Amino acid sequence: MIINNAYLSEVYEMARRRDPNKPEFLQAVLELLRSLVPLVEKQPHLFKKGVLDRLIEPERFIQFRVAWKDRDNNTRVNRGYRVQFNSSLGPYKGGLRFHRTVTPSVIKFLGFEQTFKNSLTGLPLGGAKGGSDFDPHGKTDDEVMNFCQSFMSELFRHIGASTDVPAGDIGVGNREIGYLYGQYCRLMNISEGTMTGKGIFAGGSLLRTEATGYGLCYLAEVILGKLHHTSLEGKKIIVSGSGNVALYVIKKAQNLDPAL
Amino acid sequence: MIINNAYLSEVYEMARRRDPNKPEFLQAVLELLRSLVPLVEKQPHLFKKGVLDRLIEPERFIQFRVAWKDRDNNTRVNRGYRVQFNSSLGPYKGGLRFHRTVTPSVIKFLGFEQTFKNSLTGLPLGGAKGGSDFDPHGKTDDEVMNFCQSFMSELFRHIGASTDVPAGDIGVGNREIGYLYGQYCRLMNISEGTMTGKGIFAGGSLLRTEATGYGLCYLAEVILGKLHHTSLEGKKIIVSGSGNVALYVIKKAQNLDPAL
Amino acid sequence: MIINNAYLSEVYEMARRRDPNKPEFLQAVLELLRSLVPLVEKQPHLFKKGVLDRLIEPERFIQFRVAWKDRDNNTRVNRGYRVQFNSSLGPYKGGLRFHRTVTPSVIKFLGFEQTFKNSLTGLPLGGAKGGSDFDPHGKTDDEVMNFCQSFMSELFRHIGASTDVPAGDIGVGNREIGYLYGQYCRLMNISEGTMTGKGIFAGGSLLRTEATGYGLCYLAEVILGKLHHTSLEGKKIIVSGSGNVALYVIKKAQNLDPAL
Amino acid sequence: MIINNAYLSEVYEMARRRDPNKPEFLQAVLELLRSLVPLVEKQPHLFKKGVLDRLIEPERFIQFRVAWKDRDNNTRVNRGYRVQFNSSLGPYKGGLRFHRTVTPSVIKFLGFEQTFKNSLTGLPLGGAKGGSDFDPHGKTDDEVMNFCQSFMSELFRHIGASTDVPAGDIGVGNREIGYLYGQYCRLMNISEGTMTGKGIFAGGSLLRTEATGYGLCYLAEVILGKLHHTSLEGKKIIVSGSGNVALYVIKKAQNLDPAL
Amino acid sequence: MIINNAYLSEVYEMARRRDPNKPEFLQAVLELLRSLVPLVEKQPHLFKKGVLDRLIEPERFIQFRVAWKDRDNNTRVNRGYRVQFNSSLGPYKGGLRFHRTVTPSVIKFLGFEQTFKNSLTGLPLGGAKGGSDFDPHGKTDDEVMNFCQSFMSELFRHIGASTDVPAGDIGVGNREIGYLYGQYCRLMNISEGTMTGKGIFAGGSLLRTEATGYGLCYLAEVILGKLHHTSLEGKKIIVSGSGNVALYVIKKAQNLDPAL
Amino acid sequence: MIINNAYLSEVYEMARRRDPNKPEFLQAVLELLRSLVPLVEKQPHLFKKGVLDRLIEPERFIQFRVAWKDRDNNTRVNRGYRVQFNSSLGPYKGGLRFHRTVTPSVIKFLGFEQTFKNSLTGLPLGGAKGGSDFDPHGKTDDEVMNFCQSFMSELFRHIGASTDVPAGDIGVGNREIGYLYGQYCRLMNISEGTMTGKGIFAGGSLLRTEATGYGLCYLAEVILGKLHHTSLEGKKIIVSGSGNVALYVIKKAQNLDPAL
Repeated sequence: MIINNAYLSEVYEMARRRDPNKPEFLQAVLELLRSLVPLVEKQPHLFKKGVLDRLIEPERFIQFRVAWKDRDNNTRVNRGYRVQFNSSLGPYKGGLRFHRTVTPSVIKFLGFEQTFKNSLTGLPLGGAKGGSDFDPHGKTDDEVMNFCQSFMSELFRHIGASTDVPAGDIGVGNREIGYLYGQYCRLMNISEGTMTGKGIFAGGSLLRTEATGYGLCYLAEVILGKLHHTSLEGKKIIVSGSGNVALYVIKKAQNLDPAL
Repeated sequence: MIINNAYLSEVYEMARRRDPNKPEFLQAVLELLRSLVPLVEKQPHLFKKGVLDRLIEPERFIQFRVAWKDRDNNTRVNRGYRVQFNSSLGPYKGGLRFHRTVTPSVIKFLGFEQTFKNSLTGLPLGGAKGGSDFDPHGKTDDEVMNFCQSFMSELFRHIGASTDVPAGDIGVGNREIGYLYGQYCRLMNISEGTMTGKGIFAGGSLLRTEATGYGLCYLAEVILGKLHHTSLEGKKIIVSGSGNVALYVIKKAQNLDPAL
Repeated sequence: MIINNAYLSEVYEMARRRDPNKPEFLQAVLELLRSLVPLVEKQPHLFKKGVLDRLIEPERFIQFRVAWKDRDNNTRVNRGYRVQFNSSLGPYKGGLRFHRTVTPSVIKFLGFEQTFKNSLTGLPLGGAKGGSDFDPHGKTDDEVMNFCQSFMSELFRHIGASTDVPAGDIGVGNREIGYLYGQYCRLMNISEGTMTGKGIFAGGSLLRTEATGYGLCYLAEVILGKLHHTSLEGKKIIVSGSGNVALYVIKKAQNLDPAL
Repeated sequence: MIINNAYLSEVYEMARRRDPNKPEFLQAVLELLRSLVPLVEKQPHLFKKGVLDRLIEPERFIQFRVAWKDRDNNTRVNRGYRVQFNSSLGPYKGGLRFHRTVTPSVIKFLGFEQTFKNSLTGLPLGGAKGGSDFDPHGKTDDEVMNFCQSFMSELFRHIGASTDVPAGDIGVGNREIGYLYGQYCRLMNISEGTMTGKGIFAGGSLLRTEATGYGLCYLAEVILGKLHHTSLEGKKIIVSGSGNVALYVIKKAQNLDPAL
Repeated sequence: MIINNAYLSEVYEMARRRDPNKPEFLQAVLELLRSLVPLVEKQPHLFKKGVLDRLIEPERFIQFRVAWKDRDNNTRVNRGYRVQFNSSLGPYKGGLRFHRTVTPSVIKFLGFEQTFKNSLTGLPLGGAKGGSDFDPHGKTDDEVMNFCQSFMSELFRHIGASTDVPAGDIGVGNREIGYLYGQYCRLMNISEGTMTGKGIFAGGSLLRTEATGYGLCYLAEVILGKLHHTSLEGKKIIVSGSGNVALYVIKKAQNLDPAL
Repeated sequence: MIINNAYLSEVYEMARRRDPNKPEFLQAVLELLRSLVPLVEKQPHLFKKGVLDRLIEPERFIQFRVAWKDRDNNTRVNRGYRVQFNSSLGPYKGGLRFHRTVTPSVIKFLGFEQTFKNSLTGLPLGGAKGGSDFDPHGKTDDEVMNFCQSFMSELFRHIGASTDVPAGDIGVGNREIGYLYGQYCRLMNISEGTMTGKGIFAGGSLLRTEATGYGLCYLAEVILGKLHHTSLEGKKIIVSGSGNVALYVIKKAQNLDPAL
């Protein structure tokens, strides 16, 4: 048995039969199911009513054609995706990724994980993910705008402030969110916070870019204090990467150490 | 080259990259593209503006979770599909298939072909297909009803008399259409011909079951008369199969031959 | 037993428990159930799945406050009703009655009967009825307009061309239908045949007033001819009443008798 | 005269003519009107424009058929109700009661009183009430779920976060609210606080169960302190009943008395 | 007095006060009012209830910003218009004109006349007109497409098959209607005959181009026959202009004369 | 050149060509453009993509017929307006003015300025303005109610809490807002803060009347303190006018001076 429990193995087999060609997603399902072995054995009543079957099957998966004009006026075709994985806790929430590696398997895997990530925040938020195999790298502003407006001309009917609230991800920054949200507002004749990651002037949040890095330091400070009765002060910190998380961890860590 | 034309081969390669695991669909695309070789060579202007890229990519593909209660009160989970392939000519139109062999590849393949089949009727109809890996065989009426009502509790928001008009197919007959359409009408608070294949008392068409078989004979009669200056009279006819097409071909053929 | 069959008596008892104060409705239910005795005994399988329980309980009953201004600028309050009894065969259909005798019992009784009357037409139409205890008698045109516009400011959200199609009845003629339909079109920003009984210039049907009387004569002519091998010619006809049915029966009967 | 004022007696007579068979509702109207005698005499200008006629007539009353499956797979039929009594101050708000004693008279009476109860909170809330003659007692979880989902398949089109916000009442606790709200979210494709009384994990409020009992004690403490210059401390308290109000009054009262 | 009737002069003065800068519109109003002098004098009761005030004031006039990209990727701004003049007889109906001479006055004048033109057809159609100061002359296909899609991204929320049905006019032919209708269908997710003038493959009518010219000849034939007891045969016909009306008049006239 | 910059002069010329008869609006455009001369010269890159062309052209301008009944039961016709000028920063927001001087030019001018006024608040609000040439002066309460209800029977479809939020202005006070908002809630079956300026019992804000006058004093106090190191204390203040701003400036100024 691939999992050390007959019931969980059976659940996994069904997932494999349904999605034989989605390796990223299956690996995430396998990891989840393996981690559940002790719980299934101690509290089997939690798993009645097909709870696991429903947990690993997205509530809705939408794929759509995105035709757009490139700088030479040629019509190009990409594919858009949105998996609305689970809304048990609240509106679907999760980023949009524009990158050539985007496939249904990747989107399902990310949407599956997003469900659990969001539940940990304690906020009433479900899990979702979306994106496209369109790659904004090397494209002009106008090409990106053309693509984003076409992408949203379909996505707008599936999202909403109490339904599904997309955010950015790889390839989807302030510029893309601006084009997407602008088209959403235009088509719906509404100005409502249906997307996160907007620029400040479009109603976005202050400090959003810094939040993940800063938050990491605050959390570490609390853990060190409450659990280990020490603090960041004087500690040596190793930061991996140089994205917006890493950069603001460094800034905040320096700031939190009164010795610096 | 898999196709005897550089441009068409390139189109096919893109399809293969996007859908590497959809053999039924890719085969249909390949057949279409091969048949287009003479046209592409003679009238290349017809293929500008990404016409072929757009033709082989469905406008929308929706997949959804269908949870339902079986006769032992267990919650079961199946997957529902609807591919809305092309609406250039009119509302999406195509059947729903409930069978264990239903996969995204099969649905895309059928929806792709439906686009061309519908265009041949001369009616303003686009192409679509849908269904589920749920199999009504061996299920009780109540189980089928439970499944159909749950299936429609998601599908209802994607269809409509001027948007997408489903019909039956394998595993979806009068009974299933009745349960599906009843749930549609209840949720929408509307009584509108949004599905074909309804029973007579639910607003269905008279002679729908006989239409394909009868129509075949009428068509044959016209072809024989106009093109070959003969008729069905006295001809020996071989009918393959024993479904509703075959049965009504036999009945009508006997009827058309004045000698019988 | 009030009905000569245990099952039907039990159905009737439930109706009486639910609507102890609706004598007109209960009498109609009793008549229906009594007429079903032979059918229940011969074909009991037709009565499974709670068919009768569902048949005698309206799908929806809506009652609403109608405040309007009289000629002295006083605010007056009446009550509006719409029972949407049964939509198994198609959109709800039935008249609106404005008369002081209108009560929930009368409306339910009329909506119940309308379901069966409409089913006899062979058209895909369900049954409904509505109205108000407002009495147009002795009111000015402006008062009637004020009332009708207020009445429709609530009813408009419950009706529609494929949902529920009201018509006139006692106290609701061309004038009232005009005010009601005008308000419906204004609020919905739509011009659609959501009501029958409109004036000719508002899209109504020619000969609607004459249709019932004329049709009665045509039907009698057919019955006499097909069943009794005779005709209206030379027959003496007694007509009761002097409303639009009676008047046009007389006119058409004279017209059909070649001797006159 | 049943009320010691000619105008108020006349208002009451109209209520009695409209609802001769609704004793609970008429009693509540009578009590209200009697309490208004001094005000009508001192400030008659407050009662112009049919204010009382409009106050005692609900804005909307909806009754609907609820068909559901019991544990033996039989179709059962109950009746659902929602009276949306008055929205002058804000969205309709009031509980749902599932009990065999539920009748139109009871629902109207409760919705009428709810209008005044809600106005006392100082919040912008109107008054409503609803429910069914379905009794969850002795039913299985699955039966209750079947009923609740069917009930909401009609109610969903009449409520909304800014329109009408139901809560629980007798027979409608966390379990029923969960089934009802789940079906609402599914059909509307929305996750919005359209119902109160949800479980914590479904977005409900912490301490909701304790709130009425605790609040009673806090209020008593304030009244004793501000008006009587004393406190709960050392007082003997008699609590009637043993529901969630009584239990949490006891708990909080013990907690507020520093001597305990 | 500008009109030989005090009441009509007063109506005209009000129009002039409201629209002092709309000469085309005012001239059309003046012509209408002058033609009504005999009727007003003979049947003054037809003019009660502000009928004329309502007739000369459009029900709705919408003006909107249309930003689009030209061939050099510059953002250009034009103005879109839609006057929904009168819906007494049915849905608004009237063409869209794209030309540099388009102003509010021209649009109002055309929408006013359209109301009367449509009423003469005997069909249940109201009157409307719209367009833009955008001029398709000298623009590339892509520029026209960009403009049309942007124009429809606003207009789509104001029209519909039972609400307002635009057609072509100067500068709006098959190409423009195709771009406009395509965008409408995409945004609404619907395929419905909301525009007239579509190409044959988009669901347009056969012979639409020929209809006005052919119809003129048929009408002339009837008038000559019924009123003058003669026919087109052997008559000499003078045709002014060389647009689609003139060309098809010539073709049909030749066809109707058996001597040719 | 009317403006000391070729590009800005050209922008102004286009405005003049589009709106030759709107002097109030053109003057406001001219003032804006003149004030931009230094910015255009120093930072020309801010003015790409047609930013100014888009800024001076309203996104949407709606004009509609408002028919209503006066005290003599005559039908009167006025014209309603709403310009939704710019939503870049958030939902449209701006007052409604009922006054005989209201023209399209005045409404456009006010909506244009409102866009900039709202942007200065730092809140995510766009700019709008509306109103009518109806003058409430000398009208009875019933006439004003009739007009307001008719006005809102069209406006309701263009506004909403996240779309466009009207407020009062000249001729539109608590009474008019009450009639307008009441009709909005009735037609939409919703109770939502779609208008500002409501009375306290309709969900309005406390101190709204005083806010502008009080705020002026608080602002002056801050400016005097922070910039000039002094305060209102002992200062002589000249107040112009006697409207709600003036009156509450006086009250607060007296209150802020500890010497009084």
